[in-house]
Amino acid sequence: MSEFRWDPLKSTWVITANHRSREPRDFFIDRQQIQVSACPLCPGHEAKTPPEVFALRADGLPANGPGWRVRVVPNKFPLLRIEGTLTRQIEGLYEKIPGIGAHEVFIETPDHDRAMADFSAEELAGVLQAYRERLLDLRRDTRFRYLQIFKNHGFEAGAPLPHAHSQLMAVPITPPTTKLELNVCRSYFRAHERCLICDLLDQEIHDGRRVVLDDGQFLAVAPYASCFPFELRLFPRRHGHDFAQQDDAELLACATTLRDVLRRLRNLLRDPPFNFILHTAPPTQSRPGRSDDWISLPYDYHWHIELVPRLSRIAGFEWGSGFFINLMPPEQAAQFLRDTDPDGGFAF
Amino acid sequence: MSEFRWDPLKSTWVITANHRSREPRDFFIDRQQIQVSACPLCPGHEAKTPPEVFALRADGLPANGPGWRVRVVPNKFPLLRIEGTLTRQIEGLYEKIPGIGAHEVFIETPDHDRAMADFSAEELAGVLQAYRERLLDLRRDTRFRYLQIFKNHGFEAGAPLPHAHSQLMAVPITPPTTKLELNVCRSYFRAHERCLICDLLDQEIHDGRRVVLDDGQFLAVAPYASCFPFELRLFPRRHGHDFAQQDDAELLACATTLRDVLRRLRNLLRDPPFNFILHTAPPTQSRPGRSDDWISLPYDYHWHIELVPRLSRIAGFEWGSGFFINLMPPEQAAQFLRDTDPDGGFAF
Repeated sequence: MSEFRWDPLKSTWVITANHRSREPRDFFIDRQQIQVSACPLCPGHEAKTPPEVFALRADGLPANGPGWRVRVVPNKFPLLRIEGTLTRQIEGLYEKIPGIGAHEVFIETPDHDRAMADFSAEELAGVLQAYRERLLDLRRDTRFRYLQIFKNHGFEAGAPLPHAHSQLMAVPITPPTTKLELNVCRSYFRAHERCLICDLLDQEIHDGRRVVLDDGQFLAVAPYASCFPFELRLFPRRHGHDFAQQDDAELLACATTLRDVLRRLRNLLRDPPFNFILHTAPPTQSRPGRSDDWISLPYDYHWHIELVPRLSRIAGFEWGSGFFINLMPPEQAAQFLRDTDPDGGFAF
Repeated sequence: MSEFRWDPLKSTWVITANHRSREPRDFFIDRQQIQVSACPLCPGHEAKTPPEVFALRADGLPANGPGWRVRVVPNKFPLLRIEGTLTRQIEGLYEKIPGIGAHEVFIETPDHDRAMADFSAEELAGVLQAYRERLLDLRRDTRFRYLQIFKNHGFEAGAPLPHAHSQLMAVPITPPTTKLELNVCRSYFRAHERCLICDLLDQEIHDGRRVVLDDGQFLAVAPYASCFPFELRLFPRRHGHDFAQQDDAELLACATTLRDVLRRLRNLLRDPPFNFILHTAPPTQSRPGRSDDWISLPYDYHWHIELVPRLSRIAGFEWGSGFFINLMPPEQAAQFLRDTDPDGGFAF
């Protein structure tokens, strides 16, 4: 029988259907391959992007030329722009503010044909270091309430270019999803004087059924109320609210687990399109003379990465109700992923 | 420049990008055609579905045989089942309840090849009457907190069968999206002693830029903070919280407007996949001896239909942030739809 499951972190109900047994192959989708004649993210084409704002390259090599391992550039067609003043405009019952923000692209590798799952742990740690450096730089701009880092892999997950990349959007309003999680964690901390996510991890480790991977430093879990088949969350076991304060060793440990999980997903589900989202505390600088600094010290938060394969569609019921329907119970998803060899080929 | 726009009804922010001019053709998508060898929804195949719970057919014809104009049957593979008791089960920090509910299918026409946009207003009113009758019947079961009616048109919008149909899901928890709207409307009513949606309609009629159609009884509007390109909401101008209390004349007026709008969308966007969702007040029966009857008299609500063409994808940013990105400002969408002949062919 199906069941409604409650997610205490996202404060949502999900319908988990477990009355029909499903196999990973039931979720395979036909992938659309994107062909690009002259990829603007490849080495040698640095002039096709705006000038870089960060790069990892050998000492002595000039900026905006080849030789980089990771390169970060402003989006050439940004959705949000850095110039302007945040003035709200009232239109009767409505309200709007200008689309001020930043929109950057992390080019994760110089190699056009390598996906993130192909990276070594050290290469993937380099991408995470680039995330950290851009967070530290952009949080100096007090107009930005949140810095959202995410990755779209595959056309079906929203990636218009095949060259491996991730993105950062700096936004002038705390995103609703972030705000909800922060509020939930804060309420729990106030009531219990403990971190909600630390307590969730304790429970998951003790239970074990939804744990995909636990190397002592990072834990990959199929969430109890997963919205999507094979959805995963990746948590550091050591409490920390702020991704940008992690040192290189922590990032390497994160990269090691993330790499393993990405390879399992690829092998189990035939390179599925996916999104991942970095969940971290918002910048904590104070705004002189403003009362709107509503989140000042979010030490009650616990940063993590959310990983969502894009194998099912959102239809009228999900959109209309806010309930998600998941046809792959997380206990089964975790079992399939545990049984998958991260270093083998496609399992099915 | 892009802007963040606030939706007072859904309490959400949407990023409306209006810095690049876009045409309807920019949103055309390749539609997947579904072939069915023996459609279980066609006349003569009545035995392939569970026995009907409602039908419109000529007097004297027996149930579960041909001759119907609209037929409602339980879903053969229901996600939620009617049998069982609503007992919650706690698992540490988590909670679940059994998937009790009802899942019904409205077969909107006996003709396999006619879409809802092909119906006459009278035929479409028959479908709306079937919605009303099932709402009135199912709300007698006090386990159901909400009865969600929706339609998926096209494979990309979640319809597995091409034969025109819509669905009803009776759920034992008020859907989060519904609860939020009801709460917003109630707060506004308490503060202003007026209906929020009535006030929004006044503003839209006075402004005019986002009105697609206004025949004096029903109003079709492109919402100020549309989440998706060419999203529409269809409102009765006469205040009413409960779709199930509308008489046949009101339903015919609704069908007339809905038909017109569906034909405009089809002609402008080459038969786009779409979802529509009926937003109406929850059942109001009291539960003897229970305190959980939190919504007792939702007269402050205003029923309407939400219509969402499925022409864009939800990617990492939208999923992670809860912000939607809409590349077609609603003022332009409304203009395109006003300029489209509902009775012509494809406009582009």
